[in-house]
Amino acid sequence: MRFLGLMALGLLAACASGQPRGDAPTRSLAEILEQSPSNDWRTVDQNNLLYMQLPAGRVIIELAPDYTPLHAANIRALARAHYWDGAAIVRSQENYVVQWGRDEGDTKRMGSASETLAPEFDRPRSGVRFTWLRDPDSYARGVGFAYGFPVASNGRRTWMAHCYGMVGAGRGDTADSGNGAELYVVIGHAPRHLDRNIATVGRVLQGMELLSTMPRGTGPLGFYETPAERTAITSVRLGSELPANERVNIEALRTDSATFDQVIESRRFRREDWFLDPIGHINLCNVPLPVRVR
Amino acid sequence: MRFLGLMALGLLAACASGQPRGDAPTRSLAEILEQSPSNDWRTVDQNNLLYMQLPAGRVIIELAPDYTPLHAANIRALARAHYWDGAAIVRSQENYVVQWGRDEGDTKRMGSASETLAPEFDRPRSGVRFTWLRDPDSYARGVGFAYGFPVASNGRRTWMAHCYGMVGAGRGDTADSGNGAELYVVIGHAPRHLDRNIATVGRVLQGMELLSTMPRGTGPLGFYETPAERTAITSVRLGSELPANERVNIEALRTDSATFDQVIESRRFRREDWFLDPIGHINLCNVPLPVRVR
Repeated sequence: MRFLGLMALGLLAACASGQPRGDAPTRSLAEILEQSPSNDWRTVDQNNLLYMQLPAGRVIIELAPDYTPLHAANIRALARAHYWDGAAIVRSQENYVVQWGRDEGDTKRMGSASETLAPEFDRPRSGVRFTWLRDPDSYARGVGFAYGFPVASNGRRTWMAHCYGMVGAGRGDTADSGNGAELYVVIGHAPRHLDRNIATVGRVLQGMELLSTMPRGTGPLGFYETPAERTAITSVRLGSELPANERVNIEALRTDSATFDQVIESRRFRREDWFLDPIGHINLCNVPLPVRVR
Repeated sequence: MRFLGLMALGLLAACASGQPRGDAPTRSLAEILEQSPSNDWRTVDQNNLLYMQLPAGRVIIELAPDYTPLHAANIRALARAHYWDGAAIVRSQENYVVQWGRDEGDTKRMGSASETLAPEFDRPRSGVRFTWLRDPDSYARGVGFAYGFPVASNGRRTWMAHCYGMVGAGRGDTADSGNGAELYVVIGHAPRHLDRNIATVGRVLQGMELLSTMPRGTGPLGFYETPAERTAITSVRLGSELPANERVNIEALRTDSATFDQVIESRRFRREDWFLDPIGHINLCNVPLPVRVR
């Protein structure tokens, strides 16, 4: 088949041969990662990991307490209370979000978690160490990375960006009505209009394909119309609550490392032979955030 | 459940009540479309429509001969030769593309279609009537819409943008190696680094969810590892070749219409009560391109 070209686009693409073009990096993404020093990687804290077991497999989510600490704490409390065991995927909207939770009124299952939380839609910029992208963004004055997540800033405030795979906490019409009990994940082109309107709480590190391929709901906004269409959630556990032999030792590339700078440049300038135009630009949500299992 | 807020984000959201904010439009997207004059819509030419029948349903794709005329003509010839009947979905890569075609060597099925085509990765800007977006873009100096498709321009040249749902023609390492026989559709965050590197030939108007939920392939780059994992394509027909009673009379909102300007503004400034920050920005690939069936 004639898809050899498209094959060259992937994460595992070999290094381009031939002459360097411009000042583009000379190593492939795979080589950059293989040759990276071990201290450019961080071991993801098990206290920030949610293990969601679905009938078809396991999803692992990293929480982001540096941006949304109250939500992280509440989600940990919900996981400790086994709040989501027997909950369900309730919504799958094309090019938008997949969402899970419980029917209203199940607050008795919430354990020590709060029913409402102060909004955490953004935070002060001060104290955050950014890796900035130099390319323009449609939505924010500045975009880049902090603590392993894609973020944006207007100079005084900073917030996490709704890129593919990012997880947020559904809320009602009032700012404090989200509590982390109903979560959604982005499965389409980044809905950045949600930025600063809702709390983004983390991102999917593993098992994203289990969520993104959920049959789309046929009700308004992709909600399933009957209980039979929902996918049941077997359990959600905090990594730190799991027996050691059930934990996955995940490492994430530090977004403030020299290796990550090289990752960005390797995706901004495409050196593979297949590329006739090396591009020289990148969007925040097209930068890969590498993870690996030890 | 607490997802009432997220429900308010959708295409069908009711008009926001209360006081107008700033100079934002006062009608909801649904109202704008309902109240639009009929001549702001175009009937999509059946000679530009591909009907792809899958076991689970039908996908309808609109070709874009104003940008990629040679590819449109070749794809029409392939459809007339029933080239894709019995072909298969061969690749489903998470947050990237789903691709379909035939195994190499099936050129005898190609009818009058060419095996190679001159590259159509961009075209001259002259003669194209654009609806520009005023928001910045990460990849191009100017972005907007033309002939119903999302497009970009550097001043002299213009090309179609790889937004979610856009369809392209796979190629090998040489510029003329694509012929439209192997097609792919974007199922994730817009891979705009493909712009100007490959011919974008159209977009999915109906049935996108049948492609986006294809089980991901476990081989490199999402290719299926065994024939059994592939989904067979029952048939692909050009609309103009179908009996009249099998055609779908699709109308698309003209992207050079006043109604479309209002659609853009209604999505740039979010007026629904749920939005605490109305945003005031939009990305090219977040602008909906409304279609309706008569």
